[in-house]
Amino acid sequence: MAKEQREISIAEFFTKNRHLLGFDNPRKALLTTIKEGVDNALDACEEAGIMPVVTVEIIPLEQEDRYRVVVEDNGPGILKSQIPRIFGKLLYGSKFHRLKMSRGQQGIGISAAAMYGQLTTGKPVIVTSRHDPKKPAHYYEIMIDTKKNEPKIIADDEIDWDGRQHGTRVEIEMEARYQKGRLSVDRYLLQTALANPHVKLIFRAPGEKELVYKPTSKVMPEQPKEIKPHPHGIEVGALIHMLQETKLRTLKSFLTSDFSRVTARVADEVLDHAKLSLKARPSRIARQEADNLLAAIRKTKIMNPPTDCVAPIGEQLILKTLKDRYEAEFYVAKTRSPSVYRGNPFVVEVGMAYGGKQPTDKAVRVIRLANRVPLLYQQASCAITRSISAISWKNYGLSQSAGSLPVGPLTMIVHVGSVWVPFTSESKEGIAHYPEIIREIKLALCECGRKLSTFVKKRRRAIEEHRKRSYIKLYIPHIGIALREILDLSKSQEAEVVETLTDVLERSRKG
Amino acid sequence: MAKEQREISIAEFFTKNRHLLGFDNPRKALLTTIKEGVDNALDACEEAGIMPVVTVEIIPLEQEDRYRVVVEDNGPGILKSQIPRIFGKLLYGSKFHRLKMSRGQQGIGISAAAMYGQLTTGKPVIVTSRHDPKKPAHYYEIMIDTKKNEPKIIADDEIDWDGRQHGTRVEIEMEARYQKGRLSVDRYLLQTALANPHVKLIFRAPGEKELVYKPTSKVMPEQPKEIKPHPHGIEVGALIHMLQETKLRTLKSFLTSDFSRVTARVADEVLDHAKLSLKARPSRIARQEADNLLAAIRKTKIMNPPTDCVAPIGEQLILKTLKDRYEAEFYVAKTRSPSVYRGNPFVVEVGMAYGGKQPTDKAVRVIRLANRVPLLYQQASCAITRSISAISWKNYGLSQSAGSLPVGPLTMIVHVGSVWVPFTSESKEGIAHYPEIIREIKLALCECGRKLSTFVKKRRRAIEEHRKRSYIKLYIPHIGIALREILDLSKSQEAEVVETLTDVLERSRKG
Repeated sequence: MAKEQREISIAEFFTKNRHLLGFDNPRKALLTTIKEGVDNALDACEEAGIMPVVTVEIIPLEQEDRYRVVVEDNGPGILKSQIPRIFGKLLYGSKFHRLKMSRGQQGIGISAAAMYGQLTTGKPVIVTSRHDPKKPAHYYEIMIDTKKNEPKIIADDEIDWDGRQHGTRVEIEMEARYQKGRLSVDRYLLQTALANPHVKLIFRAPGEKELVYKPTSKVMPEQPKEIKPHPHGIEVGALIHMLQETKLRTLKSFLTSDFSRVTARVADEVLDHAKLSLKARPSRIARQEADNLLAAIRKTKIMNPPTDCVAPIGEQLILKTLKDRYEAEFYVAKTRSPSVYRGNPFVVEVGMAYGGKQPTDKAVRVIRLANRVPLLYQQASCAITRSISAISWKNYGLSQSAGSLPVGPLTMIVHVGSVWVPFTSESKEGIAHYPEIIREIKLALCECGRKLSTFVKKRRRAIEEHRKRSYIKLYIPHIGIALREILDLSKSQEAEVVETLTDVLERSRKG
Repeated sequence: MAKEQREISIAEFFTKNRHLLGFDNPRKALLTTIKEGVDNALDACEEAGIMPVVTVEIIPLEQEDRYRVVVEDNGPGILKSQIPRIFGKLLYGSKFHRLKMSRGQQGIGISAAAMYGQLTTGKPVIVTSRHDPKKPAHYYEIMIDTKKNEPKIIADDEIDWDGRQHGTRVEIEMEARYQKGRLSVDRYLLQTALANPHVKLIFRAPGEKELVYKPTSKVMPEQPKEIKPHPHGIEVGALIHMLQETKLRTLKSFLTSDFSRVTARVADEVLDHAKLSLKARPSRIARQEADNLLAAIRKTKIMNPPTDCVAPIGEQLILKTLKDRYEAEFYVAKTRSPSVYRGNPFVVEVGMAYGGKQPTDKAVRVIRLANRVPLLYQQASCAITRSISAISWKNYGLSQSAGSLPVGPLTMIVHVGSVWVPFTSESKEGIAHYPEIIREIKLALCECGRKLSTFVKKRRRAIEEHRKRSYIKLYIPHIGIALREILDLSKSQEAEVVETLTDVLERSRKG
């Protein structure tokens, strides 16, 4: 058997297991490719402080079920030397090794899309990018050598790119299926516009007129800061790894510099608990001592992580966007303070639009967002859905059968932002069930729910009121006529009686 | 940004994303570790033709939530030179690059368990293995260098292993939670015994008496053969890759040798359709020609893959095992002929045990197996559950609400065996929804369902019969007494009347 044992390249692994990356079938592959392209485009624009303009195009090709998928942005462009590996190598990028809230997390998405295109059509990914307005744009055709997980350059040119100053254009030819509906590219782009009111999105679908989502906000979202890991939630293996890797020379400076929210006082307390010297060399800490250090960290009260590392959309903007996109009667939004799970800060926000012409007899519409990216698949297994279903919505004036989504004319946006969103799968479709995250989502939902319930109850009273008032309007004139006939009243006496009766009843109703 | 772009090692990737490998939480991590250990043990024993004896031990340690997990087998042992990489490197092994039905598929499981142990306790994996009875056993302590995804050897000794001739023992210290119930190690081992009647399983759980599952079959399962890929279902990217990699020098020999079921006649037909020369050099085939070749392959009728590459448990053994483990009134089993999805042969088999003391008002019990491995998690999203729920069980005498599992006193085993089982996640919990697989599962279920329905209806008739007979038994003597009183009959006349009446009614009932 021994001679058959050999290494497996990550590209071989993900070719065989491409469903793990969201390329299960031609329809989902199309959505995943566009998601990865748009995620990258928006991240790049925002990091460079450029208001994003992103074009998505799906061009049908001659051969059935084949499309050319194009995502183009006005971002900062990519350094020439980086292009081949960003698009032609899995697990390569700048986002994996940092703790920063961004759409992309792993450095696997866009190269996986390129690999899928190559697998289903044999064609390279085409990248045009201009980084420096003083130099021409670069044009690349890249394939992936799956056995080595390395890029293979098919074409490498300099071109004049329609006078464009900066930006990136990615084209992937692939087997795909374009279809509207619940899990469609259309739905994804609509929700992306909702979650990113500062973005201009242009969509050209096969056989359709160009669709433009104009930005509804002129303000660039605050750039979230990169942070160090928070000491609560770190595991002993990770701690040992950090102790070995650090360049700092004492335990105290290691704790205060390589973690967030560890002040000198906190470090003293931790090391005192762990019975370790402040001046000990991190690399000399033995496994048992690391265990003690971790126990001490867990026992010590440490401030929550800084809030500027997670940038929420914000209550005001959620309200504005909901009002712009949904005609409803009542709007509410809540952004919670950041919290921590497994050492990672995260923030939860919820928005609701109630009433209007939304159906009253269907489950509420739920828009799930993670770091401003809409999640379409895996609704049932996502922590967001789980949190919504776990709340007793009858208390808030909605009907619900136990353990299900509530029913009513309501659209809910739930956004989880984090320096590291724990997706249940690499294809980023659902959020894992961390109790801390579920707790925060439920709290945000309940805060909005209470306000919603006040509105729903007030509206219900108003309807009741209106119904009573209609009775009075309807019946009193008839009583007037009847009285006139019985008592032989004059027209003016009748009018007086009607007025008095109305007045008496109005007063009693209000009392 | 460019300077921050860098490569991500697969071990770093899976450390951060360990939920993708089934290490979401301490309880699931324990189950996953034991599954990976037992999978490897059984595969190794069977490939070497040794009747497996596997011991699983969960030893609680001093520190809360820490356990030492031990899996030991009487298998062939591992070559010394291979031990470090098998346990200390992700994506390494002999199973990824072949098409053969086995429990392990990827070369990622046991090293991921070792990595999880290291992450949560900082401790190395301990491996004792003896391959050659003439040499001593090897003892290794191995850690994983996550940055390089390479093993780091902590200890390397030769030991005398209690006189053992051959076998392997793996010990991993880890953060875990041991708990009985639905998703437990106990349940997994019970189902493993069910799916592998030739295996002896010994289980030592914390605070429990040793549990032994004795083998109920003395016959070693047939060793499934390794095969070449079947041409139907292959994709153009994979075809191009194969054309480039092959050592064969003509298209015809490439087609007949590198694929299964391509005879000389089939190859001629394919190449004729594709307008390609029989003698063309595979490596010279251009992309467009590969496209044509694939279209021609898809148009050509090709025999189904050979059946000896998938080894079912078999109807007889499923029946025997069900009878041994479940007290029921009716048993049925069906093994389908092999079929193909995406070029991969697979086989489906179903067993059912109906009646006895099983609850009549609960959903049926479903035991899902893939390559003889029980699947516990992800029941709802698995193709097996989907197939069961899609069948109208009322036709077969069970009650069911639409789209749900049927209700009744029934245990079902559904086994999908394949040279490559398409799991929905790397943690091997559910089977992906390939239409071909769902179709085969449904056909097997319906075949068993029809037989079940005959039994259920017969039993229902028997019950009805019994009820009627009881009526006769109950009422006729009273009629006898009444007649005696009315007609003043003697005791013997009464007995005669009762006998005659019973006889008449019995006859009319049967008519």
